Amino acid sequence: MNHTELRAELHALHLELPRNGLVTWTSGNISARLDGGLLIKPSGVTFAELTPESMVVTDLNAQVIEGDLSPSSDTATHAYVYRQMPEVGGIVHTHSPYATAWAATGQEIPCVLTAMADEFGGPVPCGGFAPIGGEEIGAEVVRVLKGHRSPAIILQSHGVFTIGKTPLAALKAAVMVEDVARTVFLAYQLAAARGVEVQTISPADIDRLHHRYTHVYGQQQHQETPCP
Amino acid sequence: MNHTELRAELHALHLELPRNGLVTWTSGNISARLDGGLLIKPSGVTFAELTPESMVVTDLNAQVIEGDLSPSSDTATHAYVYRQMPEVGGIVHTHSPYATAWAATGQEIPCVLTAMADEFGGPVPCGGFAPIGGEEIGAEVVRVLKGHRSPAIILQSHGVFTIGKTPLAALKAAVMVEDVARTVFLAYQLAAARGVEVQTISPADIDRLHHRYTHVYGQQQHQETPCP
Amino acid sequence: MNHTELRAELHALHLELPRNGLVTWTSGNISARLDGGLLIKPSGVTFAELTPESMVVTDLNAQVIEGDLSPSSDTATHAYVYRQMPEVGGIVHTHSPYATAWAATGQEIPCVLTAMADEFGGPVPCGGFAPIGGEEIGAEVVRVLKGHRSPAIILQSHGVFTIGKTPLAALKAAVMVEDVARTVFLAYQLAAARGVEVQTISPADIDRLHHRYTHVYGQQQHQETPCP
Amino acid sequence: MNHTELRAELHALHLELPRNGLVTWTSGNISARLDGGLLIKPSGVTFAELTPESMVVTDLNAQVIEGDLSPSSDTATHAYVYRQMPEVGGIVHTHSPYATAWAATGQEIPCVLTAMADEFGGPVPCGGFAPIGGEEIGAEVVRVLKGHRSPAIILQSHGVFTIGKTPLAALKAAVMVEDVARTVFLAYQLAAARGVEVQTISPADIDRLHHRYTHVYGQQQHQETPCP
Repeated sequence: MNHTELRAELHALHLELPRNGLVTWTSGNISARLDGGLLIKPSGVTFAELTPESMVVTDLNAQVIEGDLSPSSDTATHAYVYRQMPEVGGIVHTHSPYATAWAATGQEIPCVLTAMADEFGGPVPCGGFAPIGGEEIGAEVVRVLKGHRSPAIILQSHGVFTIGKTPLAALKAAVMVEDVARTVFLAYQLAAARGVEVQTISPADIDRLHHRYTHVYGQQQHQETPCP
Repeated sequence: MNHTELRAELHALHLELPRNGLVTWTSGNISARLDGGLLIKPSGVTFAELTPESMVVTDLNAQVIEGDLSPSSDTATHAYVYRQMPEVGGIVHTHSPYATAWAATGQEIPCVLTAMADEFGGPVPCGGFAPIGGEEIGAEVVRVLKGHRSPAIILQSHGVFTIGKTPLAALKAAVMVEDVARTVFLAYQLAAARGVEVQTISPADIDRLHHRYTHVYGQQQHQETPCP
Repeated sequence: MNHTELRAELHALHLELPRNGLVTWTSGNISARLDGGLLIKPSGVTFAELTPESMVVTDLNAQVIEGDLSPSSDTATHAYVYRQMPEVGGIVHTHSPYATAWAATGQEIPCVLTAMADEFGGPVPCGGFAPIGGEEIGAEVVRVLKGHRSPAIILQSHGVFTIGKTPLAALKAAVMVEDVARTVFLAYQLAAARGVEVQTISPADIDRLHHRYTHVYGQQQHQETPCP
Repeated sequence: MNHTELRAELHALHLELPRNGLVTWTSGNISARLDGGLLIKPSGVTFAELTPESMVVTDLNAQVIEGDLSPSSDTATHAYVYRQMPEVGGIVHTHSPYATAWAATGQEIPCVLTAMADEFGGPVPCGGFAPIGGEEIGAEVVRVLKGHRSPAIILQSHGVFTIGKTPLAALKAAVMVEDVARTVFLAYQLAAARGVEVQTISPADIDRLHHRYTHVYGQQQHQETPCP
């Protein structure tokens, strides 16, 4: 895929963020790895204003290589993750409401749904508080997600980062983490109101579900789900 | 209805799943009974990508008869239900959020609304935990729903299955179960927050409401509601 | 307005029900008073299928005068209200989720928002449980709303009825009752979770707000808000 | 920007209110400062009916200068704020549900999200109860927001007012206050149901986040975010 195509794809993926209720106004961003750098949303631009051409190219130290606008203020975080995790090809950041509510309590999202076992292979982990703008968030993302089955992390008092082989895979994880964050939230509310318990899934069942989902589910000839 | 028409109808019904907020990304599926087999969604394909032609035909042992893609990983469950319940012509599976939250607590949804008495004739039952991919879920669906008035079951830690004479009737049940799961959820939250009780409906009133709805409501000349 | 225009208007108003999230599948209906009768939605028809021509004319004993379809199974209720309350020109019935959750607890919605004082002049009252299909619901609506400032009532374990001089005014009340039912629900949840109280508004302030809203607010030359 | 352009812009901004779920039926309004006056929504008109030409010009005592319709019944409040706070160029008023639920408890929204530190620089303050129609609400808005970092205030038992250098900036604050009101609501619900705490952010971190957001975030050459 050349740069023109990648800009068009990254633009199209950004439009999925408001369509899926993951972002408000200008918050949230997606990046794609390039040779020796990354392509990312410009800072403080609304999703309706975004164009393929407005995306910014930086190197892996977050220095602008190409683009008239300033890159996302989370660029140093994205760059750090790409430097430390060569398997990552796309990153998504949102403040999606249910996942961010979990992050506000500083608690991981427990794996109590088969859909979570499928997609995340266990709980969605919660990283510590880190300031915005530098590499601290990136360091927390890498510390927690490196070698972890989950492609998603929630960050205390802040929001969500997801990673994937491609920007699309990271977007899928961002959509799914909000979906399960909501359902698990509802389950705990219901349990508390009715004096019952949220049922757990055994670690062995979680392993079996995750293995099936990552080895059998879907179309084996289509490893990359196309853009929705 | 020939196969071409059935593929078109099943495709149209699948698009109702995201429109009604019942599914996320590729989750959820609908099947229709065919002579000696079934027609079902392909596995891991987003709703925007689906076409009438991409639907897969299998026999009632879940073996592919026609189609280039792998069928839904829930196909063995659908096939099992069609084998055991000859009256079923359509099946819907979702992880719709409110119904799945009830499933996460392993509790049936109590029949505390006239709309539930109408459509489900009592509580929406909750089946036990079962692994995904084989016939175990199908066995649980049949064990609980055979002879039951409810066309819907929630499965512990997993989601929803609904059945009907047609795929459309099963879809209606899937839409209605999420609707009542949400309202009853809200009622229990409100009762807990305000120290009051959710009001019950007597079994005799539930019977009367269900009888009226299934015998008087609607257009008697139009037993099958057309596609919305 | 002649019958053709009234059918077109009633059809357009019905489409506002799903647009405002007040109904699911075929539930909910609106009627308009005619000379010596009423015009109402046919039973068990989805909102996408409705047409101006499909609306049914009945007399005030709910006997069909004109129309090929069976009228709403709530027609006897509508007819009863029109017989008993000559000031009513339109009626709306929904199972909108937040208002119905209040109804499931059998509790009125307390008047704790200025918007409630404006529109309802106090709490939204809750009527008792009544069977569906006959005049019992109508009798409960009339018993509670006759001489009451609120154009809306919630009915235990069931849903919402609203009345107005016109079908549009009743629709507005149906939209507003769900809106305030949601906000007041959220307020009580918040108060319970944080150990604080929902603030009350004094009866004198409620009276002042309601008087201003019904005498000063809006365009005095436009008593009837046009269709949204 | 001449009056024709300002009317068109104010009309376009009003349409963002229902699009973002902040208003119901005719509630909510936006104004823009003019030389010696203000431009504001007419009273009791639905958003679908609004046109650029229907906006009303008043002086800073809320007396109509230009326009066939009565201005919003909140005009005296808007006028008071413009008189007392010369830095304000736009004002938005809504009853958005989550923020209004906080207002119903009479409690400020605690600053427990980095997005709140960014946009509001601390908690969103809650003003006292004030009658509608006169200047009392305006006085409460000015008393609380003058010299405050937050561009948003919630008013007890009522709703939200936001201010900005432009109507667009005030609209952004209205969108963001509902977004954070929802996420913080969810966080407290989750904490209460699970017996954990919502994590706080230190005052020093809030200061750092707010300084970065107001000095570094976004495009420095584009101080005014264009209309979304």
